[in-house]
Amino acid sequence: MVLIMADRIAVIGCGAAGATAAMQARKFNRKAEITLFNTEPYSQYSRCGLPYTISGKVEDFQDLILTSEDNWSMMKIDAKLETTVTEIDHASKKLKYSGSEGDGELEYDALIFATGAENADPPIKGLDKKRVYGLRTIDDAKSLAAEVDKAKKVVVIGGGLVGVETAEAFHECGADVTIVEFLPHILLAMLDPDMAKIVEAHCEEHGLKLLLNTAAQEITGSDEVKGVVVKNRESEEESEIHADIVVVATGVRPITDLAESIGCEIGPSRGIVTDDKMLTNIEDVYACGDCAEGSEFITNNPMTGGLGTIAVRQARVAGINAAGGNETFPGIVGAKVTKLFGMEIASTGLTADLAKRFEVPMTVGSIKGLTKPPYYKGGKEIKVKTYYHKETGKLVGGQMVSLEDAAMRINVITLGIQHNIDAAELFDFENCYAPAICDTWDPIVSSALAARRRLKI
Amino acid sequence: MVLIMADRIAVIGCGAAGATAAMQARKFNRKAEITLFNTEPYSQYSRCGLPYTISGKVEDFQDLILTSEDNWSMMKIDAKLETTVTEIDHASKKLKYSGSEGDGELEYDALIFATGAENADPPIKGLDKKRVYGLRTIDDAKSLAAEVDKAKKVVVIGGGLVGVETAEAFHECGADVTIVEFLPHILLAMLDPDMAKIVEAHCEEHGLKLLLNTAAQEITGSDEVKGVVVKNRESEEESEIHADIVVVATGVRPITDLAESIGCEIGPSRGIVTDDKMLTNIEDVYACGDCAEGSEFITNNPMTGGLGTIAVRQARVAGINAAGGNETFPGIVGAKVTKLFGMEIASTGLTADLAKRFEVPMTVGSIKGLTKPPYYKGGKEIKVKTYYHKETGKLVGGQMVSLEDAAMRINVITLGIQHNIDAAELFDFENCYAPAICDTWDPIVSSALAARRRLKI
Repeated sequence: MVLIMADRIAVIGCGAAGATAAMQARKFNRKAEITLFNTEPYSQYSRCGLPYTISGKVEDFQDLILTSEDNWSMMKIDAKLETTVTEIDHASKKLKYSGSEGDGELEYDALIFATGAENADPPIKGLDKKRVYGLRTIDDAKSLAAEVDKAKKVVVIGGGLVGVETAEAFHECGADVTIVEFLPHILLAMLDPDMAKIVEAHCEEHGLKLLLNTAAQEITGSDEVKGVVVKNRESEEESEIHADIVVVATGVRPITDLAESIGCEIGPSRGIVTDDKMLTNIEDVYACGDCAEGSEFITNNPMTGGLGTIAVRQARVAGINAAGGNETFPGIVGAKVTKLFGMEIASTGLTADLAKRFEVPMTVGSIKGLTKPPYYKGGKEIKVKTYYHKETGKLVGGQMVSLEDAAMRINVITLGIQHNIDAAELFDFENCYAPAICDTWDPIVSSALAARRRLKI
Repeated sequence: MVLIMADRIAVIGCGAAGATAAMQARKFNRKAEITLFNTEPYSQYSRCGLPYTISGKVEDFQDLILTSEDNWSMMKIDAKLETTVTEIDHASKKLKYSGSEGDGELEYDALIFATGAENADPPIKGLDKKRVYGLRTIDDAKSLAAEVDKAKKVVVIGGGLVGVETAEAFHECGADVTIVEFLPHILLAMLDPDMAKIVEAHCEEHGLKLLLNTAAQEITGSDEVKGVVVKNRESEEESEIHADIVVVATGVRPITDLAESIGCEIGPSRGIVTDDKMLTNIEDVYACGDCAEGSEFITNNPMTGGLGTIAVRQARVAGINAAGGNETFPGIVGAKVTKLFGMEIASTGLTADLAKRFEVPMTVGSIKGLTKPPYYKGGKEIKVKTYYHKETGKLVGGQMVSLEDAAMRINVITLGIQHNIDAAELFDFENCYAPAICDTWDPIVSSALAARRRLKI
């Protein structure tokens, strides 16, 4: 195979995906001309770190900047910040941009879309009022951090990862925080209801208020937020909760307008369709990160990752391939974790809900155990669920919650999914053991045993 | 295949292996007559928990008893405590025993040796003095716990797992503790020298004294311990260190006399030779746990496990097979962990030393990283080494030390070894990511990348 080196690579977007794609292209091809466009005035920063700037667990916004402007110069990557690509003529491989340092045109050989995602505004009245915030950018986080000393009552609309992490942060700063979740439970994109309930009880114990199965209908107030009108979806009862500020965290939508303008196919998950080389349907055009649709690992169903881990892995493949390489992205398992009030919440692969949607028949191994042997002081309760394909016995998912070691344990399940192991093989897993660490049979192994009995393997 | 159910199963030994074998035999075969012999007066207890009875992390000796005498009755297993099997006539399948409740004879169909190991006394003068202890049994631990308020100066001979855990315990109780290690570093059965050095520095920072590369030559004192004469093996300088008590933790030796008496083959690791069914060379005779020699997973070299994890897994196989089943033990990877002064120390598969002995050519991926993203407060330094077969690129070992999450991370390496993955596949591992948990590229993945470059895969 003759690889043709792309001389000129344009990367649109400078989040985890865009920055990684540019760097990996540079590492692979020292001679390429690489240009990186970012509509924001900041160089690459960690989006996932934003909620922690509120509580101070991230001390300074500057700490979130992962690649400085100097780094780009050192790598001989032309990073154009505060600059928007306005038009692409892919037939002649030219693009136009407009930015703080003027407008211009650029010719390219390969193009990488790493345009990310944007907050999807929910159908709620009053979103335009003052002190209503999203949390997607560093500027959003700065606005929120400025509210810490003022906002006594905070309403967060949406109980997904960004919502709960932001709620925790404000709660830790002393605010009275209510999460309004439309669905019957928080975190349903990663947890089954029974697992979500454990997390909800833990959050409520720590003083967070949760309104589940509840629709936020209107943000009240004249110029500035006064409250949120909510409606319980079961009882249909309406009430108004007072709020000094409202954070809207109801999910995101891939940014695909530019890609669509040159004919990139958009998939059912609303992302730019890519293959396992991160190529779109158009030659020399790649997409990666939150704007891209990839394949779910187990079923090959189309899926956007929406995760930093997926973004950097897809971007590495896109960057190297755009620069003339031949890397492959193995598919999205979708390991998701967070920590709330000291509780680790971890999930990977298919949840019960996702399996249903993808029509994967599943058998579960569910175990309540302890992180350490019962005789050793300080072990914590852990609930472990591992999921297997009902017919093949292959591992297809897992969920864990505990005050310790749930996240690191989920890694074992992810690797097991990636290597196609079944319940009998997971049962044979030789977990590490020491009284101060874990018992002789890890709860993971016990869950595999429970499933094995049901699967009869 | 016609499975013949053994009607009468005799299990000799009631540690992790013996107890598990008996229970698993019972679960598999409800009708079998199962007899369990234990020379000690206690029912099954956790040997690994013993050091923690000194510091109080295990609050009561009773907590260590994992299976009570009532449990045995409930399972209809005849547990004969304080009873020694004195003679076996395997030709007629009869054994004689002698115990606190009298002597007797028993006929059996299948026999399981789970006789464990005993402390191997090193060639040191004065081991017979008062206040010289081993730490293998609950009675040993009781003697040591009784010294906590009296012993101000403690010398531990041997820097393996039992030695360091006992040293930590006495140090935490306020004693002045010195470890005398014959080899150049502590924990060399699980760590390479560079990793051991990190642990040593950490222990010394916490006030533990380490005499490395030092031979304990004589325990001084008339009737009772006064000190230990030690000799630096390099400088050959001799000195005497004062000691109120001495703990000898220089390793163990499989107990095989009874097995040898009926013709069981003893292997190069001094354990009873077994196959993957845990069968010895003699029909209907099984062995498991510390007394048994099994196969190292990667190279199939003979090896005794010396680990609770291996004991229970082998015992499950032995118990089920003795009762008529057909289970297979997959081999010993040998995951080892401990925690010392808050530092997690973890190892799995081959160390550099073991690889040399087994003639496995290895390539290493070595990384110093952080457990969490650098922008998030409180991440800890972690050193990760992963080892690969130089020719095939397959994962063959790993070592990690950190103040958090080293042990759970080693589990990923163990599963990877068990499923034969290579450096490129480990690099594709989709670790979980969240600021409060771990960065987008786990240090494990970074170590795989470092090795991949060397391996050129």
